[in-house]
Amino acid sequence: SSWVEYDADCEFPIQNLPYGVFSKRTEDGAPRCGVAIGSKVVDLKALSDNGFFDKTVQEALREVRLNKFMGLGRPAWTQTRETLQKLLSDADGTLRDNAALREKVVLDVNECDLHLPCKVGDYTDFYSSREHATNVGKMFRPNGAPLLPNWLHIPIGYHGRSSSIVVSGTPVHRPLGQTRPDESKPPVFGPCKLLDMELEMGAFVGPGNKLGEPIKMENARDHIFGLCLFNDWSARDIQKWEYVPLGPFLSKSFASTVSPWIVTLDALEPFACFGPEQGANGDPTPLPYLRDSAPGAYDINLTASVKSKTATSEALLATTNFKNMYWSVFQQLVHHSINGCNLQPGDLLGSGTISGSSGPSSFGSMLEITWRGANPVDIGNGETRKFFQDGDSVRLSGACQGDGFKVGFGPCEGTIGATPEL
Amino acid sequence: SSWVEYDADCEFPIQNLPYGVFSKRTEDGAPRCGVAIGSKVVDLKALSDNGFFDKTVQEALREVRLNKFMGLGRPAWTQTRETLQKLLSDADGTLRDNAALREKVVLDVNECDLHLPCKVGDYTDFYSSREHATNVGKMFRPNGAPLLPNWLHIPIGYHGRSSSIVVSGTPVHRPLGQTRPDESKPPVFGPCKLLDMELEMGAFVGPGNKLGEPIKMENARDHIFGLCLFNDWSARDIQKWEYVPLGPFLSKSFASTVSPWIVTLDALEPFACFGPEQGANGDPTPLPYLRDSAPGAYDINLTASVKSKTATSEALLATTNFKNMYWSVFQQLVHHSINGCNLQPGDLLGSGTISGSSGPSSFGSMLEITWRGANPVDIGNGETRKFFQDGDSVRLSGACQGDGFKVGFGPCEGTIGATPEL
Ligand SMILES: [Ca+2]
Ligand SMILES: [Ca+2]
Ligand SMILES: [Mg+2]
Ligand SMILES: [Mg+2]
Ligand code: NI
Repeated sequence: SSWVEYDADCEFPIQNLPYGVFSKRTEDGAPRCGVAIGSKVVDLKALSDNGFFDKTVQEALREVRLNKFMGLGRPAWTQTRETLQKLLSDADGTLRDNAALREKVVLDVNECDLHLPCKVGDYTDFYSSREHATNVGKMFRPNGAPLLPNWLHIPIGYHGRSSSIVVSGTPVHRPLGQTRPDESKPPVFGPCKLLDMELEMGAFVGPGNKLGEPIKMENARDHIFGLCLFNDWSARDIQKWEYVPLGPFLSKSFASTVSPWIVTLDALEPFACFGPEQGANGDPTPLPYLRDSAPGAYDINLTASVKSKTATSEALLATTNFKNMYWSVFQQLVHHSINGCNLQPGDLLGSGTISGSSGPSSFGSMLEITWRGANPVDIGNGETRKFFQDGDSVRLSGACQGDGFKVGFGPCEGTIGATPEL
Repeated sequence: SSWVEYDADCEFPIQNLPYGVFSKRTEDGAPRCGVAIGSKVVDLKALSDNGFFDKTVQEALREVRLNKFMGLGRPAWTQTRETLQKLLSDADGTLRDNAALREKVVLDVNECDLHLPCKVGDYTDFYSSREHATNVGKMFRPNGAPLLPNWLHIPIGYHGRSSSIVVSGTPVHRPLGQTRPDESKPPVFGPCKLLDMELEMGAFVGPGNKLGEPIKMENARDHIFGLCLFNDWSARDIQKWEYVPLGPFLSKSFASTVSPWIVTLDALEPFACFGPEQGANGDPTPLPYLRDSAPGAYDINLTASVKSKTATSEALLATTNFKNMYWSVFQQLVHHSINGCNLQPGDLLGSGTISGSSGPSSFGSMLEITWRGANPVDIGNGETRKFFQDGDSVRLSGACQGDGFKVGFGPCEGTIGATPEL
């Protein structure tokens, strides 16, 4: 345990130490790398300036974003974690007993603004929940097999838009666009009417690979820095009209929200588990390059909630778990690079909407929860929702339950604002 | 005309002055911004160090890539062009008569390595040639209408992979991947067998827009810095198996080749023209946000050629023209931002494969030229091609024909190397 105080329900105990980028609100300071513990942020630049890490680590942690540190790789990450756990542990007086240093290094999170943890060079969104893909198939191809022929062979994914990835708390404008609500009439122009969330997790790439040099499964874990919560906001009406044959485009690129904190694979290791069996019950066995003998899933409890503009409390929309995903982060990574595509530090892999198998309240999008609006959900305050309204605040949460401690991700929230004036 | 010597066939006369990034091969120097004239490169850092531009322009041109300069906007671009045209004109002695300065500033292109002109934050590939979309429709949906219902309403596009964009001359590895050549059997793993080019042009974004603030058509021209040649290498067998329902992914992300030189809109202005009429002959008229009264096309002659490993000369594969494109660069840009998506300096918009209407020799991909391999093309040297083989060097060219001068793009070349070892 740590000399920093927090209770057993805290998402950021000493076992977690997630990475983020913050600035002090009182100063007009540049962003700095930090880790969260309790309600505190540990300033990694201040620790670097005081020589607490190796030289290369210090150089990386003095940057205004985490990309360089992400690029250093697992040995540097693990060393840094060990140093931080030692400095923050009950048994160590280095910071605890040095008020001047502690004041410089340990800040109250309430005095900080949290920023995007890194520059996302490229963002890829996968589609790896079997339940989600099956739900979508049932809705949009009611007469066909719910899963398309390639789905059990390939971790299906598509390139997403990096520039519009925003950190939790950033307002989300309802997008304008083309839709065709009546297929017997021409398309129309206006604000999206079917604004949705997608409850996902994101994986940040570590060192990455050179163009032309695929990453093998046996090395996959050295190339993932950590995970975050990820809301892949989706405009269903725009998506429906635009997405054939080249995939979702403007229906996704208006905003995607990430949690400010990245939980490392080291912190998640106790919660690693096997995902759904592949190649069982008549399913095809993945091709050899995608096979993984180690546990590739993580037991992370996830929720999505909404609070309308006039509501006084949140309504729970869905409860699901990351371990439900058919394709693991490592399979996504290996597939992504198999053609030689180069992945770079800070690149983001979206998991795809995470839906469970226990009915609508385990689904990760309003599309599924309300079954295309057929079954509006009660969100309290005398209100129901098919999709989201202006003023709705949508929040994702995620946490692993350890023995007497939690490892969580902090909030991933966005409030929907009106369409911009044209 | 200029005191730098070149002949009437030269792609880089004083009317062009395309921007790129180079380094001197003899030194181990950092990349620098430059413009091409004749067989020379003008070192813009050296000119900036000598105070030839405004302070903000000089600061931007001292960077190792063009993004900052691209972000300055049209007034800065036009001023810089005027200064360069003056310094390089016959009438001006400033450089011509100052051997010491000239030697610093004007370099032989043969002594330089050319690099990617900018960091591409996000790359989007459009699909804006009606002839190309029609050809693809005829091949893959022989019993349906060749154009999908949305095509004449929307400049269809999808997010591409930024990290694997490479400059002309970079070898292209044949990608590994999953394909399903026999639909009655499981997919197989191995090198792509149907490796193709896509003859495209790319548009580099200038200042861009803030998230949530769409760019209006009346301002579109202030947001495009210039054009390049673009080969969107495509693995047709991987594409066919992976692309439903979320679009092309690994079939495209192994490499995309750009020409080293970006020709500015100012240099292309004399070649602006109207593209195909929209809303004519029963076609739907685009929605108001996409309408443009100014000429949005450019008359740029384009070719694709191939030279096999053992051939002594190139074979011409296709001749087409950029003015064939149904959707203009400006319509693509406006559509891209209509949902509030933020575009940033250096973002790249691929035009989509540029096919003409004069039969196979005007088509921009081997898929179309050979009609899925049904009609192999003779490439001389006793060889034919359905798709490309290892060792093939594929080159795109593009030039506008002025009155006694040309405005060209230089080569956009890539040679196909073997699949990487796994
Ligand atoms: Ca998604
Ligand atoms: Ca293309
Ligand atoms: Mg999104
Ligand atoms: Mg490509
Ligand atoms: Ni990108």
